[in-house]
Amino acid sequence: MTDIEPQEASLVARLLESWPHLAPEERLQTFRGLSADDSEDLFLALDPRANAELFLDFNRAERRLWLRFLAPDDAADLIQELPEEVRPEALQLIDEKVRREIMALLLYREDEAGGLMNPRFVRVRPDMLIAEAIRYVRQQALSVEPIHYVYVLDSNQRLLGVMSLRQLFVAPAEKKVADVMEDKVITVPDEMDQEQVSRMFQQQRFVALPVVDKEGYMKGIVTVDDILDVNQEEATEDIQKMGGQEALDAPYPLVPLKEMVRKRAGWLMLLFVGGMFTTTAMERFQEEIQRAVVLSLFIPLIISSGGNVGSQATTLIIRSLALRELRLSDWSRVLLREIVTGLSLGVILAGVGFLRIVFWPNAKTVYTDHFVLVGIAVSVSLIGVVLFGSIVGSMLPFLLRRLRLDPASASAPFVATLVDVTGLVIYFSVARLILSKSLL
Amino acid sequence: MTDIEPQEASLVARLLESWPHLAPEERLQTFRGLSADDSEDLFLALDPRANAELFLDFNRAERRLWLRFLAPDDAADLIQELPEEVRPEALQLIDEKVRREIMALLLYREDEAGGLMNPRFVRVRPDMLIAEAIRYVRQQALSVEPIHYVYVLDSNQRLLGVMSLRQLFVAPAEKKVADVMEDKVITVPDEMDQEQVSRMFQQQRFVALPVVDKEGYMKGIVTVDDILDVNQEEATEDIQKMGGQEALDAPYPLVPLKEMVRKRAGWLMLLFVGGMFTTTAMERFQEEIQRAVVLSLFIPLIISSGGNVGSQATTLIIRSLALRELRLSDWSRVLLREIVTGLSLGVILAGVGFLRIVFWPNAKTVYTDHFVLVGIAVSVSLIGVVLFGSIVGSMLPFLLRRLRLDPASASAPFVATLVDVTGLVIYFSVARLILSKSLL
Repeated sequence: MTDIEPQEASLVARLLESWPHLAPEERLQTFRGLSADDSEDLFLALDPRANAELFLDFNRAERRLWLRFLAPDDAADLIQELPEEVRPEALQLIDEKVRREIMALLLYREDEAGGLMNPRFVRVRPDMLIAEAIRYVRQQALSVEPIHYVYVLDSNQRLLGVMSLRQLFVAPAEKKVADVMEDKVITVPDEMDQEQVSRMFQQQRFVALPVVDKEGYMKGIVTVDDILDVNQEEATEDIQKMGGQEALDAPYPLVPLKEMVRKRAGWLMLLFVGGMFTTTAMERFQEEIQRAVVLSLFIPLIISSGGNVGSQATTLIIRSLALRELRLSDWSRVLLREIVTGLSLGVILAGVGFLRIVFWPNAKTVYTDHFVLVGIAVSVSLIGVVLFGSIVGSMLPFLLRRLRLDPASASAPFVATLVDVTGLVIYFSVARLILSKSLL
Repeated sequence: MTDIEPQEASLVARLLESWPHLAPEERLQTFRGLSADDSEDLFLALDPRANAELFLDFNRAERRLWLRFLAPDDAADLIQELPEEVRPEALQLIDEKVRREIMALLLYREDEAGGLMNPRFVRVRPDMLIAEAIRYVRQQALSVEPIHYVYVLDSNQRLLGVMSLRQLFVAPAEKKVADVMEDKVITVPDEMDQEQVSRMFQQQRFVALPVVDKEGYMKGIVTVDDILDVNQEEATEDIQKMGGQEALDAPYPLVPLKEMVRKRAGWLMLLFVGGMFTTTAMERFQEEIQRAVVLSLFIPLIISSGGNVGSQATTLIIRSLALRELRLSDWSRVLLREIVTGLSLGVILAGVGFLRIVFWPNAKTVYTDHFVLVGIAVSVSLIGVVLFGSIVGSMLPFLLRRLRLDPASASAPFVATLVDVTGLVIYFSVARLILSKSLL
């Protein structure tokens, strides 16, 4: 009997970490050099995109072998990652029965329950005795892996109930399945969005959930390991959108440069055109700047502070909406909170800003004889701009959700651009008011 | 035989969604009003913080009942959420044996494998026959739920191998456990950081992994549903940091206002003080502004564009580092990519900016007689600032990781502040160069 071999066990893990960093030829060579066990483990652990890349480099025999090795849902994912023109050929490598399973899966969108599910699961009939069911499950266990639950279907494949393998294991042999099974089954509609499916797993601790179509026929199971991938994908998408760009849909190092520029240029251009309103706003205050250049010194500081607070607020709210900690109807409570928070933060920054100006070495030379008034104007503006930043940053995600757009699009740059324009107007209006009898 | 009852099944789900929005009294009342089944499901599905809140409102009998109802790891999580002074009392409600299990768990940090694990698992001996093992597992199955794997331990509790319940199920009854078990076991050290544990689950599709201490003694199992929570937590932390603030550690609506202000004020103040360098930078260019106020019009537009590109780059790189798509050693490849991307994006914005200035209605009046030169100066600056934004945004996360700090701290506001200061210097230097014989 051998002992645990941690070295051996982590070879696949190490390969997984280094996989994106290998050249395509190296990948094929490395893969072919692995033991049968390790190559199987690796092929199962790689994501569909990486598998598809390997697949394209395989010879015909390898393609056949490895495509058949995958469960139908994983095979479908791989095929979906192949170039359109290779797909029919790939499907021809698989047996008729499995091919039909895969083609049924390919009809679903990738991001709905049907696109996630595994069409193979262990089933029993309600009128079987437990002892019979156990024998029947043992037969199926050879071809279905892994098993978490045993599903009870009627002769029309409608889902009637469910038992965990453990329940089956401990039930008295002479009882009927129908008497032991759980008949309140939580099911996932086959067209449910994957985000919603993920939420069901997050809320209740299932290892697998059955997928049923509109008529109640059971189509497959979604397992929690698929949900790990879904969550990672969704968080990545949100984070990328929150950075002010389209989601990339692939790991950063694998996105072609041209696509990267395209995905970033769209929002950037939109923000740039929006940002042009700062120029228009500034035009209205040219005279003030001419008369008191000192005012221009604080423009970047003031508008950036508004943008920073806005960035804080928008990331907090976007994430809370995504996790359902907040609902659309909470907007007014949040508004109130952000007004108080924004005022507090504004007062803090205003205090620091005021001291910075008034106690600056030779403030008089740099900030004119009216440096105290300048300090007051900057401080009051800061309170206004920071408050406005909090409000825009926190309300924009609600507004987007209300308009059925993705709240994650309320990116830090988007909020900052909105706050920039208004920030300038606030600053110069306050300056006019406070400095009208001295500097202006 | 009853049919599926989707209404009934989703009551708990609906309660979970509305839970954060209920007042504390309403929660207790709602909870007490539930059927035994539903209240059990709800209590299992709520997070430890929510459970602890309920617990504090319970009477003594309820406290006893519900604390005993939880698995030891969940009970430990609940107790960790209780105020320090209530904990000893809570521990007294539990039987001696379980109390010892819980106290052992409380010794682990919340964010390491030992703090995540369930100390109960199903075990067999290597020299048992499969038929014996099945009987032995059936006995344990009554108290351990759920079962995914059966662990093979020697008499010293050292882990020798593992079998899935399915493997046990299909193995010939007369074989020995040692001959059927998988002896290459992937294990998690009890002090491994939860992020690393999560990566193991993400890479390889396990439902549960055994936790062992330094001596190889098995301490418990981590299951994939715990990993769902870990991932959600970690993504939330990253997102909040990327917004330019400390992570909140609790859902937005539950964070007290004072704490919220504190967690946001720290970074905000730091960014504000950093932003003051924009004022210092501007002071050096006061003369230029005095002579050509038109230059000030483009300050917000130019520095924001740099910040926007920087925000894109930093979010992409932070996420890719978190997902291990990128490694520290990839920095030079990324730098090259971002230089090309930044130049491309800069040229695009520069083109739009140039056209905006030159073809503006009465450009001559607004942008002076030298409006074409102004357009050129703005465009050239844009290319420089956007390029600089790409570089800073992409390199800062690498630098932080190199310094063993959290790359997620390279927030959009942080990058924007860095780019603001340099952006001003770039803009005015370019303007001096291009406009020295005309406007300046």
